[in-house]
Amino acid sequence: MGNCSDDVLNLDSLRKSLVREEDTIIFSLIERAKYPVNSPLYDERPGFSGSLFEFFVKESEAVQAKAGRYLSVEENAFFPDNLPPSLLPPRGSQQVLHPRGASININEQILNMYHKKLLPLITSDGDDGNYAITADRDLDCLQALSRRIHLGKFVAEIKFRESPQDYTRAILAQDKDALMKLLTFESVEEMIKKRVEKKAMVFGQDVDLSENDNVGNYKVNPSVVSRLYGEWVIPLTKFVEVEYLLCRLD
Amino acid sequence: MGNCSDDVLNLDSLRKSLVREEDTIIFSLIERAKYPVNSPLYDERPGFSGSLFEFFVKESEAVQAKAGRYLSVEENAFFPDNLPPSLLPPRGSQQVLHPRGASININEQILNMYHKKLLPLITSDGDDGNYAITADRDLDCLQALSRRIHLGKFVAEIKFRESPQDYTRAILAQDKDALMKLLTFESVEEMIKKRVEKKAMVFGQDVDLSENDNVGNYKVNPSVVSRLYGEWVIPLTKFVEVEYLLCRLD
Repeated sequence: MGNCSDDVLNLDSLRKSLVREEDTIIFSLIERAKYPVNSPLYDERPGFSGSLFEFFVKESEAVQAKAGRYLSVEENAFFPDNLPPSLLPPRGSQQVLHPRGASININEQILNMYHKKLLPLITSDGDDGNYAITADRDLDCLQALSRRIHLGKFVAEIKFRESPQDYTRAILAQDKDALMKLLTFESVEEMIKKRVEKKAMVFGQDVDLSENDNVGNYKVNPSVVSRLYGEWVIPLTKFVEVEYLLCRLD
Repeated sequence: MGNCSDDVLNLDSLRKSLVREEDTIIFSLIERAKYPVNSPLYDERPGFSGSLFEFFVKESEAVQAKAGRYLSVEENAFFPDNLPPSLLPPRGSQQVLHPRGASININEQILNMYHKKLLPLITSDGDDGNYAITADRDLDCLQALSRRIHLGKFVAEIKFRESPQDYTRAILAQDKDALMKLLTFESVEEMIKKRVEKKAMVFGQDVDLSENDNVGNYKVNPSVVSRLYGEWVIPLTKFVEVEYLLCRLD
């Protein structure tokens, strides 16, 4: 799986990571959907600087930073300011990305999409009081989505190396539309949307020992997963790719 | 799902929680199996009081404690000593369990089983350096297993209330064998083992858009999941049930 930075830069292994990450994202959505929306988790709270959700994510990221999570160029924090240093030494992996592009972090957009668009589509109304575990499930979803979307940096680097002339022209002109066109393959995007919908059906069904599958009773609506990819995951990944390429020659 | 303490005590909702928890456990195992064993994570480290794994779990549980995770009687910490207090008020749910039995915590045994037995069966050899995310996946597996196994307290309470006379006789005699016999239904256990094996096949397959399923290529060996339940999850749950009943009349 995704240890792209260690594999020099291998398109086949990157594709495998992107496909495998679909399963991770869908599992995490199913696990979040186990709980109702639990909206008090996201309300501003007296005594906290923000919501319990924000407190939980910041404190969890601090623990993970100490354990070295953000030494990996594939990982991006949601609250990267004031993270404590890693207690482990740097990993010394090869720097395959262009240094400026490597630091792109669009987690603020991902967080916004998650709260405003995705969460209402996958959760039921209600409040069961299980805020800590709900926040933990949120963080799992967010980290999986963030990892998938920021892998766009590696996709962009590979595509640049495959056709440096085409990309260089568009980069020198800082032409976002031309870059977006070079990066877009509609038939591939349609295939991804169909595949994640199918995965949501397979992973979200109620499995019992009867012969017949329990068709139609899914823990997360498969069409929501297809929409998640079509409207947010794929466009945000391409946004990362374009941002990366725009500074690729700096 | 499992908010048993709020539903007075409802056998049907408890059964649903136990079945739903199977999916959570299998997803967590599949996600852990994405990474190799990463054994340096578990080695004692100079400068840490223990391993990086232990550091990570203790610090994560401290964050979760502050966010109120252990206010729920369904949640048991792996390192319960010196946890910080919850920043949220107590939940005021009904105390449906007998107070002494409610505090049973066999997470030390679960941790031991996880490291010595389960982890070698679900991970490949190797070290990819992704220790923080690996520890995070470990904690997910452990918390799911712990929740399932400690739900035995609720199972025991329900069974006691269904047949108080039979259980009272065995409890007064402190007869563990008689209690174990009252609690054991081999045909149900066999059905659970078959169901989790089937779930591991469904959730752990590679899903693509071809017509045929990719039979035989599973992310976690389904027979390992069946064995996990048969050798550890079911026996440990029954161990919790017996321990709970032994002090039920105190």
